Amino acid sequence: MYSDRIRHPALTGKIMQAEEAVTLFRNGMVVGMSGFTRAGDAKAIPVALVERARREPLSLTLMTGASLGNGSDGLMAEAGLLARRLPFQSDATLRRKINAGEVMFIDQHLSETAEQLQSGSLGPVDIAVIEAAAITEDGGIVPTMSVGNSASFVQQARQIIIELNLGAPLTLEGLHDIYIPGPRPGRAPIPLVSPEQRIGSTSIKVDPARITAIVITDSADSPSTILPPDAETAAIASHVIKFFESEVAAGRMGPELAPLQAGIGTIANAVLHGLIDSPFRDLTMFSEVLQDSAIELLDSGQLTFASASSITLSSAMYDRFIKDFDRYRSRILLRPQEISNHPEVVRRLGILALNTALEFDIYGNVNSTHVGGTHMMNGIGGSGDFARNGQLSIFVSKSVAKDGAISSVVPMVTHVDHTEHDVDVLVTEWGLADLRGLTPRERAPMIIEHCAHPDYRPQLRAYVEEACRRGGHTPHVLGEALSWHERYQSSQTMLMR
Amino acid sequence: MYSDRIRHPALTGKIMQAEEAVTLFRNGMVVGMSGFTRAGDAKAIPVALVERARREPLSLTLMTGASLGNGSDGLMAEAGLLARRLPFQSDATLRRKINAGEVMFIDQHLSETAEQLQSGSLGPVDIAVIEAAAITEDGGIVPTMSVGNSASFVQQARQIIIELNLGAPLTLEGLHDIYIPGPRPGRAPIPLVSPEQRIGSTSIKVDPARITAIVITDSADSPSTILPPDAETAAIASHVIKFFESEVAAGRMGPELAPLQAGIGTIANAVLHGLIDSPFRDLTMFSEVLQDSAIELLDSGQLTFASASSITLSSAMYDRFIKDFDRYRSRILLRPQEISNHPEVVRRLGILALNTALEFDIYGNVNSTHVGGTHMMNGIGGSGDFARNGQLSIFVSKSVAKDGAISSVVPMVTHVDHTEHDVDVLVTEWGLADLRGLTPRERAPMIIEHCAHPDYRPQLRAYVEEACRRGGHTPHVLGEALSWHERYQSSQTMLMR
Repeated sequence: MYSDRIRHPALTGKIMQAEEAVTLFRNGMVVGMSGFTRAGDAKAIPVALVERARREPLSLTLMTGASLGNGSDGLMAEAGLLARRLPFQSDATLRRKINAGEVMFIDQHLSETAEQLQSGSLGPVDIAVIEAAAITEDGGIVPTMSVGNSASFVQQARQIIIELNLGAPLTLEGLHDIYIPGPRPGRAPIPLVSPEQRIGSTSIKVDPARITAIVITDSADSPSTILPPDAETAAIASHVIKFFESEVAAGRMGPELAPLQAGIGTIANAVLHGLIDSPFRDLTMFSEVLQDSAIELLDSGQLTFASASSITLSSAMYDRFIKDFDRYRSRILLRPQEISNHPEVVRRLGILALNTALEFDIYGNVNSTHVGGTHMMNGIGGSGDFARNGQLSIFVSKSVAKDGAISSVVPMVTHVDHTEHDVDVLVTEWGLADLRGLTPRERAPMIIEHCAHPDYRPQLRAYVEEACRRGGHTPHVLGEALSWHERYQSSQTMLMR
Repeated sequence: MYSDRIRHPALTGKIMQAEEAVTLFRNGMVVGMSGFTRAGDAKAIPVALVERARREPLSLTLMTGASLGNGSDGLMAEAGLLARRLPFQSDATLRRKINAGEVMFIDQHLSETAEQLQSGSLGPVDIAVIEAAAITEDGGIVPTMSVGNSASFVQQARQIIIELNLGAPLTLEGLHDIYIPGPRPGRAPIPLVSPEQRIGSTSIKVDPARITAIVITDSADSPSTILPPDAETAAIASHVIKFFESEVAAGRMGPELAPLQAGIGTIANAVLHGLIDSPFRDLTMFSEVLQDSAIELLDSGQLTFASASSITLSSAMYDRFIKDFDRYRSRILLRPQEISNHPEVVRRLGILALNTALEFDIYGNVNSTHVGGTHMMNGIGGSGDFARNGQLSIFVSKSVAKDGAISSVVPMVTHVDHTEHDVDVLVTEWGLADLRGLTPRERAPMIIEHCAHPDYRPQLRAYVEEACRRGGHTPHVLGEALSWHERYQSSQTMLMR
């Protein structure tokens, strides 16, 4: 049974229903599940856990690669299953519970969870739940549309449950490159020196005796929810491309640029989409997630290779990708997120990092996570891994939100995820501010005049003027620095009347 | 003449007075000078430049390794020589000019200046001024008590001026290990896998034709200004050592711990000093600077090897170090700051990072640089290089400053240099908060009860209570978040009456 997918003979006896598999879980356990930006997530076990939690108290610490699909995070949060959750999420229900203080959420750099498991700062993991396309002759687990932290969870966990997804094409075998850095002290350099290089194995090696259950599933990943490009995201893309052109003209990069990283979401996807009409050729990606735009760039021939930890596509693009997989097979690779986001590799390859800001301030500090400084949106994800260690760190945002009531450019961000030390370029639909080599006093006018919405420029200029009158390397008026956010809370707009 | 120190025959003809050498400088030039935490700085050229600036307009962009000694930064700032300065400084006069907006100061991670020079984001460098103990037969420059960015300045600069310091013992030859990562794309892994490993050459290789002047000097580095341990720094040291003991007891580290980094300054020095009475053996350091405490630990036998980018000692310790240099030679090594602080190496070796905070907040964000959120103290230095990429990131501070008028633990820091994502442990004389795996709502009581001064705990608790009532993942009362700093400005204390 399933002999093409369960190729290790001792394992067919481990097949069971999800309802039976979840009896392995105990209250208080630490669980590591596959899944990264909705791709390759465990699908049956979360539902069965929710069922069980309706009958008896069951509360877990849940680690994943990143966000889950299929509403799993929301269902599990609603059922009270999630005592603790890390390192990322993007579910409305879970978000509400986090902000109410009901779920303890640990917002981590995505490269660090595996490292903290290895060093013992987190964990230990009781059960790993991993979606697989197949189990090889020697017990290797072949992941599906993401690798995420799955290899580390398998390495660390006491027991492993496989969700064997019959809907995942067997052709995916060979897509993955599994490499986990060795223990410290004594760790060797990660030998990766270019995006297309293979340094590991095509499956997650495991002693089959540690696999305690195999659950058969057949449901698809949740499709991507990105919105199509609009006039503003097209303008942002155009500013970024013009900037890349000027970098090439200045001799700082060749026409192949440097390996590109683009964060999850509509704006980053739109910027990559914009590259289709650009003069750049022989591009590579070294990112954590590939969205529709990456497939389009592979189709256009401009992207020669794309390395990531997951592939998250719209339904139509997914169908096309799977149907024509042979065309993509040699030009795409999925790695553990510890490698896709690793400081060592990100710095060595000289990544161009493109991530989305919720808001940024006149000195270049970026808030990626906290609405109004207090309420978690999704999490920092990999943005810090790439922004800190990459060659160029670009943050993009629309200049206003809520029909102009919120300015994305503020005197002081209410929460800092990326400090001015780690932010090179800021972009909105109005323009681009190149902050390299500039001091805070030089950055402020650059950011205001190039990036802020014109409606907000006068009050930003007035703030800077008063702040500079008071002095300092990074001038501020402390009593007014966060007043824009307070004004929005009290009068539903940041605009001064 | 000086044949033991200028061993390349073509170079003796380049000897000239500093007054003559500074005629090579033109208004607006970009200059790279040796010097890192007062060690190995150019001594004659700054003075001669100041003289020249008194007679004619001369304004430069000055890059160094880190801070200079001999009052050079102050003299140059006073003379109006410094239009732009990076990446670090610690001079009172220069600080005043930076905060008045008269000198443009770029506050950078110390690992990144060399990288930005190589990628063209900074520079190009017109003149490099490098202190040397000798020039070898093949034109190699032997640095003195620091390497800093000297190798990169030499690689990038159009012209090179050597300050040959006759006071630097020739025995220093062999102390240095010069390795610069190659250009991107195509960069190879940095082969360093342990603190004592040599991966480069003992001198900075250069085509002698690019050396345009050699200036003979004979003055010493400025001695370190650290204060001796006191009751509070001893208490901080004791908390840190107890924490290390508990990590060893939990099996997360061996009794040799992991390679230690300690930032410049009194508190970090005191913590290392405290290790002398600890049970740890076979310790190693992989740091950016070695202070008196490192020599004491080498003497006590507990420290087996120390790698850094500079050595900054008190006068008495310097004399002892030089006199007994043969005892230290095989146990100490100086590297370029790009390597001592490199994300790749810091992550691979699993550094224990110990740095000083100006203030931190109830959620674990750290301000290392800005007094009152606006006025630059010294700069971020290497703290971010180590805190972000190290295995454990510890920040230390006394709980209060100005006789209790300023609390180092505040509701919200006025400037963020290290985000809560990058801070694992906070320590004051009152205790230690281990923040690993904790959410913001869990961190707040831990930090308040373990680290804050008891006088400030009631008002911190009251803030958290009101903030949590309002909700959010990271609860805040925006209108009060920065009010402690405003209160200090208006009434000279953060204490509520």
